[in-house]
Amino acid sequence: MSVIPEAIQKLTLAFERLPGIGPKTASRLTFYLLSAPEEYSLLLAEALLGLKSSTGQCSECFNITRAGQDLCEVCASSQRDEGVLCVVEEPLDVLAMERTAGYHGRYHVLHGVLSPIEGIGPDHLKIKPLVERVRTGKVREVILATNPSMEGDATSLYLQQQLSPFGVRITRLARGLPVGGDLEYADQNTLLRALAGRQEL
Amino acid sequence: MSVIPEAIQKLTLAFERLPGIGPKTASRLTFYLLSAPEEYSLLLAEALLGLKSSTGQCSECFNITRAGQDLCEVCASSQRDEGVLCVVEEPLDVLAMERTAGYHGRYHVLHGVLSPIEGIGPDHLKIKPLVERVRTGKVREVILATNPSMEGDATSLYLQQQLSPFGVRITRLARGLPVGGDLEYADQNTLLRALAGRQEL
Repeated sequence: MSVIPEAIQKLTLAFERLPGIGPKTASRLTFYLLSAPEEYSLLLAEALLGLKSSTGQCSECFNITRAGQDLCEVCASSQRDEGVLCVVEEPLDVLAMERTAGYHGRYHVLHGVLSPIEGIGPDHLKIKPLVERVRTGKVREVILATNPSMEGDATSLYLQQQLSPFGVRITRLARGLPVGGDLEYADQNTLLRALAGRQEL
Repeated sequence: MSVIPEAIQKLTLAFERLPGIGPKTASRLTFYLLSAPEEYSLLLAEALLGLKSSTGQCSECFNITRAGQDLCEVCASSQRDEGVLCVVEEPLDVLAMERTAGYHGRYHVLHGVLSPIEGIGPDHLKIKPLVERVRTGKVREVILATNPSMEGDATSLYLQQQLSPFGVRITRLARGLPVGGDLEYADQNTLLRALAGRQEL
């Protein structure tokens, strides 16, 4: 539509490229910023510009770190058990685990999952460094915490095959009913898993 | 959580201030940008920086214009009927009207609605310029197209009182069932309005 100035179209299109943001939400965000104080757009722009330059990757677990820092806070901490490794797909999953405040081991971030359809093989993920960590380190247990999806399961299976020669304990997060969930709304597969994994009271 | 670098927290907090974006969506967006090519963050930042400096307001209808342009495309066009004014709350509403491709008059953007609770009175909106346009111009009809909400209705009522002395036709957008909607899911008020506004076949 020619009634819209170019600057507005440009920002709307930029917002639209974000995951989960459609054309309507994108223009709502743009018009919100138009009427909000200019400081706010500047703050957001500044945070965007600083994002890549002020972050890096931990050389040990590949989680996000501050730029210039070799090890992330978890790998640098002497409080965390280096005998337990939790293998996750993305840095966001580390946050989810940390939020539980119930995990005291270390992490390993794969940065993706195996996906033959998208052409993502073992070499595209941080699998070699994981094998290396398990081979040379003091690891007793590897918790495979990839997502409970088809790709996540396939990746876990592959990792299990790669790691089993080293004689470490390999576990996978439990499947079952989510806490606060409702039996009636649980899907068939979840309920089957919950049944198979039932425990003695 | 101290495991998150400051740059990530900063961007997440900036995203959270946008309407309709909660903490989870904000961190999802941030981590998406972290793994996306850097060009994309730069594109978004640039679009944000250019937003305010390259847009302005139409001196006639207060719609958004390109910076340095006195009149918007609609006000500058000789094709648009200057005898009909469509009064809307926000610039986004102009886009919605234009999308219908069924309106050929001009606009007037109020930049808000009357809201005593939030302390927004007639002087905070572009009401005086509207009265001036109707008083001095060639306006035959004013279409009050504020939202069908309590504030929108109150604002329309106020505008009607202000504009009635000038003897122009004053109309309001029809209420009724949305096209493609379902009688069963229509709320009580909408159904009442649809009944009251029923038309001869």
